[in-house]
Amino acid sequence: MPAQQSKLNHVFHALSDPTRRAVVARLKLGPAAVSELAMPFDMALPSFIQHMGVLEKSGLVSSKKQGRIRIYELTPTTLEVAGGWITQQQKM
Amino acid sequence: MPAQQSKLNHVFHALSDPTRRAVVARLKLGPAAVSELAMPFDMALPSFIQHMGVLEKSGLVSSKKQGRIRIYELTPTTLEVAGGWITQQQKM
Repeated sequence: MPAQQSKLNHVFHALSDPTRRAVVARLKLGPAAVSELAMPFDMALPSFIQHMGVLEKSGLVSSKKQGRIRIYELTPTTLEVAGGWITQQQKM
Repeated sequence: MPAQQSKLNHVFHALSDPTRRAVVARLKLGPAAVSELAMPFDMALPSFIQHMGVLEKSGLVSSKKQGRIRIYELTPTTLEVAGGWITQQQKM
């Protein structure tokens, strides 16, 4: 499968869940630690970390360790890939 | 879950598959019968019809029977719901 198709599969799949969309909406305000991101959700931390894994695999977010804390940030260009595909379908 | 969230779940899930995205791209050119839509894909018809079911459940397409033929057409407003969510995340 071409790389772009695979990318779109992962990004749209990542966006198909309300928790993951809420994390994207939070991260557009700026980077945050996983504990802060998890706070609004009534969910066990391992489940939440799985959602973060799906987001990271899709390329919508990236993370780095600062000491013992993992900080996530949004990768806006990945959102553009999905938005670009939709815009393309709306043309003509 | 609010209706809008549920709608976004279904639309993004529908778009997470390359066959379903190709069908959306084809239907933007105009309505088509299921046999015509299935033609480009090396896939058993029942599998293809399952994909059409996912698209229809999401509201991205609608269908009607003309005699013994089922005709599908795109519902552009549903694509706008997904595009609108992405655009909203890109602001600020």
